[in-house]
Amino acid sequence: MNGTHKVKDLKTGSSVESTFLVMEKELREFITKEGYYLQVKLADSTGSIWAKCWEKAEEVASVFEPGDIVRIKGVVEAFRGRLQVIFEPEGVKKVSGTYDIADYMPRTSKSIDFLVHELVKVMEGIENGYLKRVVSSFLGDPVFLNAFKKVPSAKIHHHNYIGGLLEHTHAVTTLCETLSTLYPELDRDLLLAGALLHDIGKTAAYEYAFRIDVTEEGGLVDHIVLGYRMVADKIKGIEGFPDELRLKLLHLILSHHNYGEWGSPVKPMFGEAEALCYADMLDSQLKEFLQLQKYEEMKEKEGIWSDFSRRLGRFLYLGRERGKGYPKEKENTEENG
Amino acid sequence: MNGTHKVKDLKTGSSVESTFLVMEKELREFITKEGYYLQVKLADSTGSIWAKCWEKAEEVASVFEPGDIVRIKGVVEAFRGRLQVIFEPEGVKKVSGTYDIADYMPRTSKSIDFLVHELVKVMEGIENGYLKRVVSSFLGDPVFLNAFKKVPSAKIHHHNYIGGLLEHTHAVTTLCETLSTLYPELDRDLLLAGALLHDIGKTAAYEYAFRIDVTEEGGLVDHIVLGYRMVADKIKGIEGFPDELRLKLLHLILSHHNYGEWGSPVKPMFGEAEALCYADMLDSQLKEFLQLQKYEEMKEKEGIWSDFSRRLGRFLYLGRERGKGYPKEKENTEENG
Amino acid sequence: MNGTHKVKDLKTGSSVESTFLVMEKELREFITKEGYYLQVKLADSTGSIWAKCWEKAEEVASVFEPGDIVRIKGVVEAFRGRLQVIFEPEGVKKVSGTYDIADYMPRTSKSIDFLVHELVKVMEGIENGYLKRVVSSFLGDPVFLNAFKKVPSAKIHHHNYIGGLLEHTHAVTTLCETLSTLYPELDRDLLLAGALLHDIGKTAAYEYAFRIDVTEEGGLVDHIVLGYRMVADKIKGIEGFPDELRLKLLHLILSHHNYGEWGSPVKPMFGEAEALCYADMLDSQLKEFLQLQKYEEMKEKEGIWSDFSRRLGRFLYLGRERGKGYPKEKENTEENG
Amino acid sequence: MNGTHKVKDLKTGSSVESTFLVMEKELREFITKEGYYLQVKLADSTGSIWAKCWEKAEEVASVFEPGDIVRIKGVVEAFRGRLQVIFEPEGVKKVSGTYDIADYMPRTSKSIDFLVHELVKVMEGIENGYLKRVVSSFLGDPVFLNAFKKVPSAKIHHHNYIGGLLEHTHAVTTLCETLSTLYPELDRDLLLAGALLHDIGKTAAYEYAFRIDVTEEGGLVDHIVLGYRMVADKIKGIEGFPDELRLKLLHLILSHHNYGEWGSPVKPMFGEAEALCYADMLDSQLKEFLQLQKYEEMKEKEGIWSDFSRRLGRFLYLGRERGKGYPKEKENTEENG
Amino acid sequence: MNGTHKVKDLKTGSSVESTFLVMEKELREFITKEGYYLQVKLADSTGSIWAKCWEKAEEVASVFEPGDIVRIKGVVEAFRGRLQVIFEPEGVKKVSGTYDIADYMPRTSKSIDFLVHELVKVMEGIENGYLKRVVSSFLGDPVFLNAFKKVPSAKIHHHNYIGGLLEHTHAVTTLCETLSTLYPELDRDLLLAGALLHDIGKTAAYEYAFRIDVTEEGGLVDHIVLGYRMVADKIKGIEGFPDELRLKLLHLILSHHNYGEWGSPVKPMFGEAEALCYADMLDSQLKEFLQLQKYEEMKEKEGIWSDFSRRLGRFLYLGRERGKGYPKEKENTEENG
Amino acid sequence: MNGTHKVKDLKTGSSVESTFLVMEKELREFITKEGYYLQVKLADSTGSIWAKCWEKAEEVASVFEPGDIVRIKGVVEAFRGRLQVIFEPEGVKKVSGTYDIADYMPRTSKSIDFLVHELVKVMEGIENGYLKRVVSSFLGDPVFLNAFKKVPSAKIHHHNYIGGLLEHTHAVTTLCETLSTLYPELDRDLLLAGALLHDIGKTAAYEYAFRIDVTEEGGLVDHIVLGYRMVADKIKGIEGFPDELRLKLLHLILSHHNYGEWGSPVKPMFGEAEALCYADMLDSQLKEFLQLQKYEEMKEKEGIWSDFSRRLGRFLYLGRERGKGYPKEKENTEENG
Repeated sequence: MNGTHKVKDLKTGSSVESTFLVMEKELREFITKEGYYLQVKLADSTGSIWAKCWEKAEEVASVFEPGDIVRIKGVVEAFRGRLQVIFEPEGVKKVSGTYDIADYMPRTSKSIDFLVHELVKVMEGIENGYLKRVVSSFLGDPVFLNAFKKVPSAKIHHHNYIGGLLEHTHAVTTLCETLSTLYPELDRDLLLAGALLHDIGKTAAYEYAFRIDVTEEGGLVDHIVLGYRMVADKIKGIEGFPDELRLKLLHLILSHHNYGEWGSPVKPMFGEAEALCYADMLDSQLKEFLQLQKYEEMKEKEGIWSDFSRRLGRFLYLGRERGKGYPKEKENTEENG
Repeated sequence: MNGTHKVKDLKTGSSVESTFLVMEKELREFITKEGYYLQVKLADSTGSIWAKCWEKAEEVASVFEPGDIVRIKGVVEAFRGRLQVIFEPEGVKKVSGTYDIADYMPRTSKSIDFLVHELVKVMEGIENGYLKRVVSSFLGDPVFLNAFKKVPSAKIHHHNYIGGLLEHTHAVTTLCETLSTLYPELDRDLLLAGALLHDIGKTAAYEYAFRIDVTEEGGLVDHIVLGYRMVADKIKGIEGFPDELRLKLLHLILSHHNYGEWGSPVKPMFGEAEALCYADMLDSQLKEFLQLQKYEEMKEKEGIWSDFSRRLGRFLYLGRERGKGYPKEKENTEENG
Repeated sequence: MNGTHKVKDLKTGSSVESTFLVMEKELREFITKEGYYLQVKLADSTGSIWAKCWEKAEEVASVFEPGDIVRIKGVVEAFRGRLQVIFEPEGVKKVSGTYDIADYMPRTSKSIDFLVHELVKVMEGIENGYLKRVVSSFLGDPVFLNAFKKVPSAKIHHHNYIGGLLEHTHAVTTLCETLSTLYPELDRDLLLAGALLHDIGKTAAYEYAFRIDVTEEGGLVDHIVLGYRMVADKIKGIEGFPDELRLKLLHLILSHHNYGEWGSPVKPMFGEAEALCYADMLDSQLKEFLQLQKYEEMKEKEGIWSDFSRRLGRFLYLGRERGKGYPKEKENTEENG
Repeated sequence: MNGTHKVKDLKTGSSVESTFLVMEKELREFITKEGYYLQVKLADSTGSIWAKCWEKAEEVASVFEPGDIVRIKGVVEAFRGRLQVIFEPEGVKKVSGTYDIADYMPRTSKSIDFLVHELVKVMEGIENGYLKRVVSSFLGDPVFLNAFKKVPSAKIHHHNYIGGLLEHTHAVTTLCETLSTLYPELDRDLLLAGALLHDIGKTAAYEYAFRIDVTEEGGLVDHIVLGYRMVADKIKGIEGFPDELRLKLLHLILSHHNYGEWGSPVKPMFGEAEALCYADMLDSQLKEFLQLQKYEEMKEKEGIWSDFSRRLGRFLYLGRERGKGYPKEKENTEENG
Repeated sequence: MNGTHKVKDLKTGSSVESTFLVMEKELREFITKEGYYLQVKLADSTGSIWAKCWEKAEEVASVFEPGDIVRIKGVVEAFRGRLQVIFEPEGVKKVSGTYDIADYMPRTSKSIDFLVHELVKVMEGIENGYLKRVVSSFLGDPVFLNAFKKVPSAKIHHHNYIGGLLEHTHAVTTLCETLSTLYPELDRDLLLAGALLHDIGKTAAYEYAFRIDVTEEGGLVDHIVLGYRMVADKIKGIEGFPDELRLKLLHLILSHHNYGEWGSPVKPMFGEAEALCYADMLDSQLKEFLQLQKYEEMKEKEGIWSDFSRRLGRFLYLGRERGKGYPKEKENTEENG
Repeated sequence: MNGTHKVKDLKTGSSVESTFLVMEKELREFITKEGYYLQVKLADSTGSIWAKCWEKAEEVASVFEPGDIVRIKGVVEAFRGRLQVIFEPEGVKKVSGTYDIADYMPRTSKSIDFLVHELVKVMEGIENGYLKRVVSSFLGDPVFLNAFKKVPSAKIHHHNYIGGLLEHTHAVTTLCETLSTLYPELDRDLLLAGALLHDIGKTAAYEYAFRIDVTEEGGLVDHIVLGYRMVADKIKGIEGFPDELRLKLLHLILSHHNYGEWGSPVKPMFGEAEALCYADMLDSQLKEFLQLQKYEEMKEKEGIWSDFSRRLGRFLYLGRERGKGYPKEKENTEENG
């Protein structure tokens, strides 16, 4: 269990007693006197917060390491516009036992089980037996599925939390279903199989033992080529898999970031690849935008404009009352609806 | 009525007798002797074809003008790999009467009535009365609707045919419905109203009396600003329309091409605008890709690769048998589906 | 009246007593002890300066708000290479009365009346009656003129001060007069009307109650489209305004930032639009450069090079004695002049 | 003397007898029979035209070379929408004598003497003796001046005719005079000296014996560095020339194309260089635009839009009656001018 | 054996009798009369030439197909500045027998055996046993080596001939040897192994049965990922191969085109990858430049400048006498060498 | 002599007594009390370090200036993860005498004499007497050679130390020797002369009296044009220097940064210029990469990835044990080497 005070509920002046994941730990020198204080970054599934211990810093620091779960007892203060926890040397204890660290990390707000269920339903709707079999060789594999359910979709920009890849895969697959209805000339089975598998290389590209980081393989080879390799290996084991279908499915994975600045070694060369590529871009860009918008809204900054976002190259419009600036209620009378 | 031989059914060596729209007309000098022959571009709803008359060219040319409907009797020949119609001076007659020229132009392969019906359904599902009313002031206006049903979505690149804008608006709206399900934080009403109205400026930006062309207003002001103006004017007539909602809806229209190379004066500044912008890009890019792919497939070129597309910056993969290169049938036995 | 000590004249160690505009106000925690001090940003027409009050900060802070005029009595100190004012709690008083806040903000160094007079002269020289009438409907409107005389031309990059738009409009118009002499094929009336009106949307795009900021309309619609709308509305009221002339004038406004990265929805499509577009670019770029050069020169940094300007992507050459590095006097003898 | 029929006055069906410059000469094989016909490009100061001789082509071709002046007697025909001259073998004679070939090439429509006079006036207004002397060492040198009066400003894009550099230098200098009035902080003398000299390297970069071409030096070193060298050499000969002033003047020349894609080795690093750089860009871009617009207008193409210009990346708006689409007359009554 | 008249030796007016590879074959309609002539593209190892047969075209066309070797007897003519062969219907015979088609295609001017020998020497100098073994598993495999010796390095831009990959690999490897001497901090073994293997995916990416073309795998997966896969599979079979070394070698292959526009899924992330990447770019760019320069020089165009190269974005300087424009002889006297 | 404790050997807690070059000197205010402390940047040939004196700062500061050599006695502390020296007021003495300041600046790790010797050898191998003479007029001039041996190759990005230009010139020349062997069609003499001289303008573009900085001439004219000028002047003094050879050599210098963003006024227009351009790019990019990699490795940061490098746009892979993560030893048994 995860304590009783969640990060997102902390307020200036309140006391806190709860368990947290230690994400960072650092001894820092005082500016105006000799010696060190201890600064740690604490997290639970609702967010993260800095905490400081002013005394016996070196001694306290030896008790735990990043990645440990600790029980902290302290008080919440405001410092330069942000909250921080101040605790005494005796206010921290390392928790031993069998916690799932993923419980202390930010995670998707959607139900992981629901998302898996939806993806399995899509898989079952694939009519081409070869394609269904290769998808099933992943989704039907409990070891893979366990990783697939947890891995984030990125380190920083979007879906950067537990379950992020699953949520992103679900959105892209759903968009591809819509596209296959709008464009009957697209091979629905191929497009959906591609959507389900397009990012599976990320299961090998990220580690998230207690922080999201890029693995050696993820950095030096990248998730696109890793995913290509995983699918190619599975197909090898499926007898009679048509050669052109194999190449097309692999091409969907390789081209889904478009060629050029975004890291795909090839550009989409047929309709299904183009469809997947833009569905992926739509979901990634939109999610990143919405995460950034939410982050800016939570700053509780005065005025209608956010801070300038270098990443997006613009200010966001936060609205007069943060999106509540106009009446949304149904009107009673609608003459011409 | 449109004759009995459609352009798409013509074959080398066959004779043809049918009515066509005259799109272009030109007197051309013979290279090897004095005098002129007549070259005309004929079209019906299934495509266009060049036709030539070798004799009495000047006389024949005086009979009709571009934009007229003519009845042509001639024979079909191959010339440099393309078909052309050869007709005698007496094989052409101008047809007077009440034809709808739009019947002779390329048009969407979807049902225009069905698409309108779908859009009206979306409009009726909008809960916010102000937004519903502004959408309804367009879709409920028979004059507007008549133009909206016919106008193309572009002169060249995609949806460049009668009903193209309608088809594109339907696709974007459908994608936005999917997005509003995936992202409940989006204001569904605002997003759908924006999707329905985002391109209505095109009704004033294109003329298609018998060829698609850009109007003066379309070239000098552009459809984005025209659409902005049309919506702004309607909103003025709706009492009590909330000011922030007005600005947001107008911003959706203005920003839907993204800022920069694509012609929007502003970048999307809140989530619904970002969503619409990428939904629009997805449909435009995909449709353009698929139209180009179809065009390349119809070349009946040998080999698996298309000609190089400068527009897309790549070769397309046409497949071993033009997309039929692998068995798509359901397998009988699926152990692990 | 604005006090007796101007910001630009303050020096380390001197005492100050004068009225200022409060631009920002913040309570800040002491690093080394409990409690707060007060930090405010003060401005008059010659510049701005930070001021601090070390005692009774919360009490003092309650006396005034950003946007107020205060009378400050204090002393000037250097802190980290910049000047700041230190004042006692009793050294600040809110001034009530009828000050024009614009008197406390940075403003053009040119005479506003002179600039208006010049623009009116240009207007009067326009021979085409329709164009003269539409320009006159703005410059002849005292409400509009009052805003036009004060609004800045940008928030940050250039002419970002009271009267900035006026100064910029004057420069662009003067350049266009030169161009119409050099290029007699240009329609002088159209070009000058466009120059006079090209940026009038900025009167609605910026607010400068006491700080320059972008309005909702300015951010979500942008000054280019706002200006288009303002002119289009005025033209509607002028009977018989030729349609092509209307479109051309509107196009000058819409295209004056060029298409693409700079926010115009359309590229210049005829000579007068191209001329205006580059005249606007010349003045904007040059002014920004000169403002930046002046800023760097005032740093009194050692050496001939400025700090690296990210904005311009280069170092500036400040010269050996800040532009005074070589004799400028007339020579007495000029053998070969 | 230059004959009696000018290229710009030729019409289909008329006969022609006049002297022309031979720009190109080519023997071409007949497609449908053995043997050759002769094709030549003829020019006078008003334009150029293709001419053909169907008989005795080899014999006729031996009579003259490109660069010669010939007297042609023939008839004018239309071919593929363009005019051409057809002449008999005996209808051509090489003209010997003392013609100035520049008289047969396209040239500025302005008075060369007037332009020189204007530039000399600017030079004389320079107060700084050193700068005036270096300018005068060029404009006062009859050999240089003779080249300066004739050399074009480019091979293709703008001012590509006899006197083009002079015309461009005059325009840039005039714009810089305007700028020095608008921006008194600019060093007027330096700016005007830079404007007068900025492109003098072109006198060595182009040859125009009878066609505009790039010299070896022009291609391998480029006019910017050539101009730098010419000015640096002159300054060496002026005793006491202040070192900083020397560097600044050289920098104006080197940076006037801006750094990057346009070929300057350095970016403008102080205000006068920035001013010159944008004045040069304004005149070059505008002139290119206007030349292209004129070229499109002369096509007498139907409709309001030009052909697509790859160079400018857009269609031009030619207007309803080629710029005559609206009444320009003064109105009689102007209520509110 | 390959006949007695090589393409590069053919001259206008001479007769020709020799064997050639048929690269293209097309029946073309006469413009001025009914019926067809036959046009074929013939090649041998020294180049290619168009040939025409004016009579019995359909009959003659049925005798052979592209990819066949034919013996042609005809005469050489000039047509529009290029040579072509004209042959009679009886002047062509299909050659059956055991020719190696590669003998008829353009090939490296270097000795293939010498290049292989050099690469083997480099391989033998690799000290790290693991790296040497993985390189040897390719170079020591006769089937691979046979393909490696023949495959071109590109379809169009550079080294686009038999032996092209070998020549390019040799150049890159030689440059990497130089780099490992200049930069002792580079891991010489890793760099050289990467250089030897960096492009081996091209053996599967190009087919050159008688024309260079891209394979399905080459187009849809690309040579970089194919090479990655080939090396990864070999490493799997080498027991104890250090994991970090494996990743580094694979990264060299994946990153050697740099990230972004050039198709690598990852950017070089350590020194050896950066070194290989730029060595590859240097050789590719230089070879392409030199091939283009040679092509332009062979046009025997008048003047010092080549035609404008769109590919390179510039004119080439061909020199006064095609590179022979200055004395290269040693001087007899060198005072200060 | 240069003291006994080198910067690179300093450790927390040790005492230090040695001579250093003073690079920067600043009086800084205390945050928490009145008064100043003194902060100086000290350097020797192995690196630089910050030092502080807490007492009598103003008095101490008057003893020496940046550029002086001082003897410092103090202790080494860690501050915010970096080392710094703390010294007492009496712990610093200005050293008068005849030190060569270059001995206190970072310098190439290679032997300057060796590099010069290598370059002279290349020069002597040039067969063309004209080219050899122009190279010799530089390398044989002791004044030039003295500057050439010391000047850095850049202020920041690569080879930014004493001897940097020499090292870079050696590397580029060596690469060009390799290229001239691989590509016999290149004019070896021209290429090597160009390589030896390509950057000599840097001797006038940088000053390094005690810090590397850009000279006025270096900033306003740039090293490329300066180098062009230096070579052009020397060639003027060599009688009979072939004109085309002169232009080609000058073009090699002018084009060696490629046209466009990198500052060359012209693009390479023949093979030797292209070769030099890419050899220069290879060495510059690789050196910059390796310097950055070394810098990141020395941070002793935990983990396999470096900090993100904005300059390179990527993370670097530092490896499991900083490049020592896999066995490099020769294997004992190599079955198939």
